[in-house]
Amino acid sequence: MPSKEELTEFLKLEFPQTKCSIDEIGNRSATIRHKVGHEELRPGGTVSGPVMMAAADVALYVAILGEIGLVALAVTTNLTINFLRKPASNKDIVCKCSLIKVGKILIVGEVTLFSDGELEPVAHVVGTYSVPPIKS
Amino acid sequence: MPSKEELTEFLKLEFPQTKCSIDEIGNRSATIRHKVGHEELRPGGTVSGPVMMAAADVALYVAILGEIGLVALAVTTNLTINFLRKPASNKDIVCKCSLIKVGKILIVGEVTLFSDGELEPVAHVVGTYSVPPIKS
Amino acid sequence: MPSKEELTEFLKLEFPQTKCSIDEIGNRSATIRHKVGHEELRPGGTVSGPVMMAAADVALYVAILGEIGLVALAVTTNLTINFLRKPASNKDIVCKCSLIKVGKILIVGEVTLFSDGELEPVAHVVGTYSVPPIKS
Amino acid sequence: MPSKEELTEFLKLEFPQTKCSIDEIGNRSATIRHKVGHEELRPGGTVSGPVMMAAADVALYVAILGEIGLVALAVTTNLTINFLRKPASNKDIVCKCSLIKVGKILIVGEVTLFSDGELEPVAHVVGTYSVPPIKS
Repeated sequence: MPSKEELTEFLKLEFPQTKCSIDEIGNRSATIRHKVGHEELRPGGTVSGPVMMAAADVALYVAILGEIGLVALAVTTNLTINFLRKPASNKDIVCKCSLIKVGKILIVGEVTLFSDGELEPVAHVVGTYSVPPIKS
Repeated sequence: MPSKEELTEFLKLEFPQTKCSIDEIGNRSATIRHKVGHEELRPGGTVSGPVMMAAADVALYVAILGEIGLVALAVTTNLTINFLRKPASNKDIVCKCSLIKVGKILIVGEVTLFSDGELEPVAHVVGTYSVPPIKS
Repeated sequence: MPSKEELTEFLKLEFPQTKCSIDEIGNRSATIRHKVGHEELRPGGTVSGPVMMAAADVALYVAILGEIGLVALAVTTNLTINFLRKPASNKDIVCKCSLIKVGKILIVGEVTLFSDGELEPVAHVVGTYSVPPIKS
Repeated sequence: MPSKEELTEFLKLEFPQTKCSIDEIGNRSATIRHKVGHEELRPGGTVSGPVMMAAADVALYVAILGEIGLVALAVTTNLTINFLRKPASNKDIVCKCSLIKVGKILIVGEVTLFSDGELEPVAHVVGTYSVPPIKS
């Protein structure tokens, strides 16, 4: 299993534009955060939906790589997001991801998104990644 | 019903960072495009998933505003995306959106995403927006 | 490609309890109907949601078998349904399915559901099936 | 908040054909089970997908009524299911539901489905119900 440092390095290579950083890698799980600045906001001061989708996608990706190793070819096949509450405009988006199935072909995980430090989630995601068959 | 020009103006106010422009507004429908440049690509030369999610979200938003008028408070409540094919790295993402339900509270639409000029879609989205009650 | 009669026969073997019948098989598409009787209704006279989900699942299955042949092992991996309007209590549910991706491992389709004869859909489904690799 | 007995009674009125029973009602949560017999199986001995969708829908409904009271008019607007593992053919399907948003108009919950007694889930659902405005 790759370390947090190795995953951080890999993430920078694969998603060079990302504003996400890794807080923690666990057993079939990961916590990541997405910085929120002017570019992430919509008028009225709420974090834009696509920023939350992007952050959740990274959380899934990091949890999966933490489980199967640094495989560049994992791709999202399906993602469903429910927006639950208005996020704070001055707090990072924190994503807690748990994998609920780790199959040979498909990996399914769910992600709960919070404004950093808040108890009630701002969004919920369930997503599927397709992974390349492991060569032996 | 707002004109394409009015919608273009409104979109710039609401999503000042967007790289989307409006091709066409129709009856319960809209076609928009998202420019693809270096920032939209992942290593290997494919358009990143979050770019497609963001573009589809704008397509839904534009189709809805074309139907109900320039209401800033419409918000996405739910969005499901299926990624179907690898998009071309040198073509705009074009999103064709049709609304399948225009209710008083919820509006549901689907979006088919293409690499500009291609026949087979690269992704498919179905999403729900919640709209504020119309005051009389 | 199997005929409508072969598919009808196969469907009876695989889903012996189904109340669905096949109207039409086309190119990457299928139309099926689900009879609506007392058992399909909820108090107040509306078709129950699970009946619509079951019908859409059969529509996807039939369209897929029409495309890849009579393979018993195709299984649903993911399904999203949006309920749009109240269905009529005295009309069949008719499901029109189009496949939007036919891959080697995953097949994605969408289904629009109607009360028989009506113009506005009662529900919309997008679903993914996983198919066993074809042996050569 | 209605008791388990009141909810059981109400469920029989609203879903007279259901094979679900209520195990437990909690704070924004519910556990229900769906009996599995010959009618719920597909050839090969697996529980059919629509049975799992129906069970999850009931779990959401019960958790919502436990929260907002016995309101017949709550309706599903959106449901996404991911099938994760083959369920056992001789065990009830047990659904554990948690509500992740209880709004005035929309309530969102997730449901994890198990074959009774197993640790790994067989499916996962996230769904939205629309609830009628509370009269004052």
